[in-house]
Amino acid sequence: MAQVQVLSPDGSVQKVDRDSQEALQALRQTTALLAKAALKQEFPGIRLGEDNATDDGFFIDSDKDDAQVSADQLEDLEAAIKKFAKDDAKIELATVPLDEALAQASDDQFSNELIKAAAKDGQVAIYKVGDVVAVANAAVLTYADAIKNFKLLSVAGAYWQGMSSNPMLQRIYGTVFFKKDALEEDLKRRQEAKERDHRVIGNDLDLFFVDPKVGAGLPYWMPKGATIRRTIERYIIDKEVANGYKHVYTPVLMNLDVYKTSGHWQHYREDMFPPMDMGDGEQLELRPMNCPSHIQIFNHHIRSYRELPLRIAELGMMHRYEKSGSLSGLQRVREMTLNDGHTFVAPNQILDEFKSILKLMIEVYHDFDINDYTFRLSYRDPKNTEKYFDDDEMWNNAQTMLKQAMDDMGLEYYEAEGEAAFYGPKLDVQTKTALGNDETLSTIQLDFMLPKQFDLKYVGEDGQEHRPIMIHRGLVSTMERFTAYLTEMYKGAFPTWLSPEQVKLIPVKDDVHGEYADKLRNEFAAAGIRASVDHRNEKMGYKIREAQTKKVPYTLVVGENEVNENKVTVRKYGETEQITKTKAEFLDQILADLATYSRED
Amino acid sequence: MAQVQVLSPDGSVQKVDRDSQEALQALRQTTALLAKAALKQEFPGIRLGEDNATDDGFFIDSDKDDAQVSADQLEDLEAAIKKFAKDDAKIELATVPLDEALAQASDDQFSNELIKAAAKDGQVAIYKVGDVVAVANAAVLTYADAIKNFKLLSVAGAYWQGMSSNPMLQRIYGTVFFKKDALEEDLKRRQEAKERDHRVIGNDLDLFFVDPKVGAGLPYWMPKGATIRRTIERYIIDKEVANGYKHVYTPVLMNLDVYKTSGHWQHYREDMFPPMDMGDGEQLELRPMNCPSHIQIFNHHIRSYRELPLRIAELGMMHRYEKSGSLSGLQRVREMTLNDGHTFVAPNQILDEFKSILKLMIEVYHDFDINDYTFRLSYRDPKNTEKYFDDDEMWNNAQTMLKQAMDDMGLEYYEAEGEAAFYGPKLDVQTKTALGNDETLSTIQLDFMLPKQFDLKYVGEDGQEHRPIMIHRGLVSTMERFTAYLTEMYKGAFPTWLSPEQVKLIPVKDDVHGEYADKLRNEFAAAGIRASVDHRNEKMGYKIREAQTKKVPYTLVVGENEVNENKVTVRKYGETEQITKTKAEFLDQILADLATYSRED
Repeated sequence: MAQVQVLSPDGSVQKVDRDSQEALQALRQTTALLAKAALKQEFPGIRLGEDNATDDGFFIDSDKDDAQVSADQLEDLEAAIKKFAKDDAKIELATVPLDEALAQASDDQFSNELIKAAAKDGQVAIYKVGDVVAVANAAVLTYADAIKNFKLLSVAGAYWQGMSSNPMLQRIYGTVFFKKDALEEDLKRRQEAKERDHRVIGNDLDLFFVDPKVGAGLPYWMPKGATIRRTIERYIIDKEVANGYKHVYTPVLMNLDVYKTSGHWQHYREDMFPPMDMGDGEQLELRPMNCPSHIQIFNHHIRSYRELPLRIAELGMMHRYEKSGSLSGLQRVREMTLNDGHTFVAPNQILDEFKSILKLMIEVYHDFDINDYTFRLSYRDPKNTEKYFDDDEMWNNAQTMLKQAMDDMGLEYYEAEGEAAFYGPKLDVQTKTALGNDETLSTIQLDFMLPKQFDLKYVGEDGQEHRPIMIHRGLVSTMERFTAYLTEMYKGAFPTWLSPEQVKLIPVKDDVHGEYADKLRNEFAAAGIRASVDHRNEKMGYKIREAQTKKVPYTLVVGENEVNENKVTVRKYGETEQITKTKAEFLDQILADLATYSRED
Repeated sequence: MAQVQVLSPDGSVQKVDRDSQEALQALRQTTALLAKAALKQEFPGIRLGEDNATDDGFFIDSDKDDAQVSADQLEDLEAAIKKFAKDDAKIELATVPLDEALAQASDDQFSNELIKAAAKDGQVAIYKVGDVVAVANAAVLTYADAIKNFKLLSVAGAYWQGMSSNPMLQRIYGTVFFKKDALEEDLKRRQEAKERDHRVIGNDLDLFFVDPKVGAGLPYWMPKGATIRRTIERYIIDKEVANGYKHVYTPVLMNLDVYKTSGHWQHYREDMFPPMDMGDGEQLELRPMNCPSHIQIFNHHIRSYRELPLRIAELGMMHRYEKSGSLSGLQRVREMTLNDGHTFVAPNQILDEFKSILKLMIEVYHDFDINDYTFRLSYRDPKNTEKYFDDDEMWNNAQTMLKQAMDDMGLEYYEAEGEAAFYGPKLDVQTKTALGNDETLSTIQLDFMLPKQFDLKYVGEDGQEHRPIMIHRGLVSTMERFTAYLTEMYKGAFPTWLSPEQVKLIPVKDDVHGEYADKLRNEFAAAGIRASVDHRNEKMGYKIREAQTKKVPYTLVVGENEVNENKVTVRKYGETEQITKTKAEFLDQILADLATYSRED
């Protein structure tokens, strides 16, 4: 197996397999450094920020006084990198006094700051390549001749050190591989991901937008996106109510003391919004989760064993402070509405309740035609039981029940020891986003701790007080994340029931057939179908193509024949065939379509 | 006409008509002082807080070291007050040096604080009656013999000086009149109001609760209340969507800068929550209204005249900082969800759009069977036009159109000059709460200002940019206030479509007929009806009475006959008759009932 030489910042040199992750990371880091050298050569005076290998490529940050580097100039830059590589530029490592390192990078404030931050005991390890001096913070290849199969992908803005109060630098992204076919495969995957990217589709179909000027991570749902969300929300609530959940509305604000009792403030503060001082000693906090709210509901009455399992559910709005760099469309946001539920059970009800939640979850997946997921059972680490909530019997009992439930239901799963939360074992349903990131679609978590912290009780059959167990569960995560997930899964071609516009009516001649189209629209609306008429003064072919672009499930053309015979000519999204049918036949078709949700079977 | 002598804190004595408001206020203040004297006599060592005449009675605050005064002790206290009155206790007024006043009230920290706060130039006016020394802050009767027809109503907690960080005192409420029949009428009105009070009904029917410990003015909707709210929300959204509104979801947080642009921060800051400093220069604010959010939606695209009127709607959550003393159940809260809508119109569309909103509003009232309201048109003050947004033509035009719309639609209204907002004229729909407070149920407000401040534009037929006008409109105010209003209007007996529990099934013998009841429940649920079975081990009569207490629209008894003949015996809420019918007949009945909403006709 081919090997490459890898140089670490500590000066050691190792041979590693070319196919190893270590070699690939070194290749990425090396390419980033060459890209910096090329930038400096092509644009003298440019200031250079960070260079980093990432999980799927690399990036370099820079800043120019005049116009920034444009996407058009990336090709020239690639040529310059290639030339460095062809000339087999050597990357030199040196550990030098801080003063010397700064002197070498004298004209560059960002490099200087990075060098200062990296210095230890007045010394700093630096890489030198071409005219560039950069902090040595990751291993590189000793020679650059391996850098052939790379591509600079895009340019975007990035705040210096990720702080929106700092200047905006320019970030150039790239990807690189040892082999040509690996690069080609990667570029193809990126293209597919782009086509599935919910942010791109969300913009094309006018579903939502985010405007960092009025609030980073705070999405605005445009009418079409809002229709999708509302349809999902009603479906979920109806489904849960039919399955014995009691839906509530609870406030998004709560006295900070409650989060001190729950422990969230102590352990989770970084992810919470700053408390609001109300001036009379009260501190209010935007809730980062809904559990304490549902505990309020539970505690509002004395509860009897007859009421258990007591299932409280809500589409609960929460706020979490995500770093601005990690925000992404609807997938990572700061304000989110969780399909949340908490079941309060007696210890001997865990098995049945867990099964009942799983059954419901699978029904929901089926209705959305979600098939690409894996189940993960997370247990406590048997070697470190002292790290977890202290109740051996509870843990053993609960973990056994979770496993048994999965087995009873014939579900495949994998077991992850040491992945449980502090407060109890859990099941996660894992899937992947278009960009390849892992994502938790659903979760069922047992919690022994909160019932104790809030001193929850129910009166048992024996007339005595007992402590319930809480089960946190989300069927489809947040409305934001789930909509992003569905957008990517369906590639924007939402099934009829979720589609914001289900029928587009196109009159052959608007002045002659427009009225019939309007009449149909109103009839469809009365039947609960979202239909609209394209009355614009455009060619019919254009209108049909646009309806396809907007991924409308049914395009109906109505002309002379259709008007005379009370018919419609139907074209289904993604099909080329046009079929003329009676209005009643079409209504039957679409209503049957609606009744099956997204299901294929 | 009978007269009484009134003594003012400045020492002046006047004769006023006994039927005047002035005399009544003096009577209330005098009774409050006598009540204080009685308290001090009955409970030596008690500390006394404020005494105040209010719009509908009086209250006195106090604090005891041991157990507080209980409701049972109010009668004794009334007797003591009567004795003071019978002895014709004289209320003495004196203006004395602060030191002397403090010395007289030496053992009482609250009285002392009140006296200190009232002192001016080292002097303070005090009333003395019995052993009590109190700040003279309102006129009293010179003699107490008029105090015969009074009643101490209730005791409740009240924070010292209204601040929740201060100790909780005890507040005793009372009412008093010169004539016996006036008192009797008042007590009757209070009893009726209590029976209609949404806070009382909300507790009896388990609809919602507020817990000041976790957040004053932040209601928790219990499952039954949540069902009512959800039903209202779905009704409103569906109605609006059918009428051309585009529903959206927008974030509850916004950059504070936006509220500086809108002017809310400058003019409305007191009612807003404190901004949150996000640490990177961003300040986020909980929105006090949704208008700027909908402006974001409007501005996200270039708009054409063809899109106008553009109707953006949302059930938009907002936060307003109401003083804790003014909070009340669901009626006055700090977190609320407004049935909000903003229409963007061209100036020549005002008349038609105003009519279309009015028509929709009246349809909605009809569906909820709301009949007791008045229309108020608010204009600018013609003598002070400089106080308003400066565009005479716009004002004259708009006010004329509003009036014309009302006349065209044959609606009665009254005109209030000088009641318009700064930014445009409006229509309010006024009604009254159970407690007799005025309440705005709906509003339509024209706004010339925000479109200018946010530089809103649309491209006209002429290809030029034009400025739209915004119409703010709420059909049913907030979900909180509207639910409170409906609860009081229906006295908790919600019509079937809104009722959280529509059918209560009662098996004659649970072990024999319970199964049939369950089967019916499932059939009803499948038809979209909220039904439950009372399986408890209680007498049938008890169960039927409880279903009546809980105001369930349909109580169905099923026994031997019903099971054998597939029938049900139906009792409608508020009726005593029980009618046996087939299951199909009952289904027809309830589905017809549901289809008419709350309408009586």
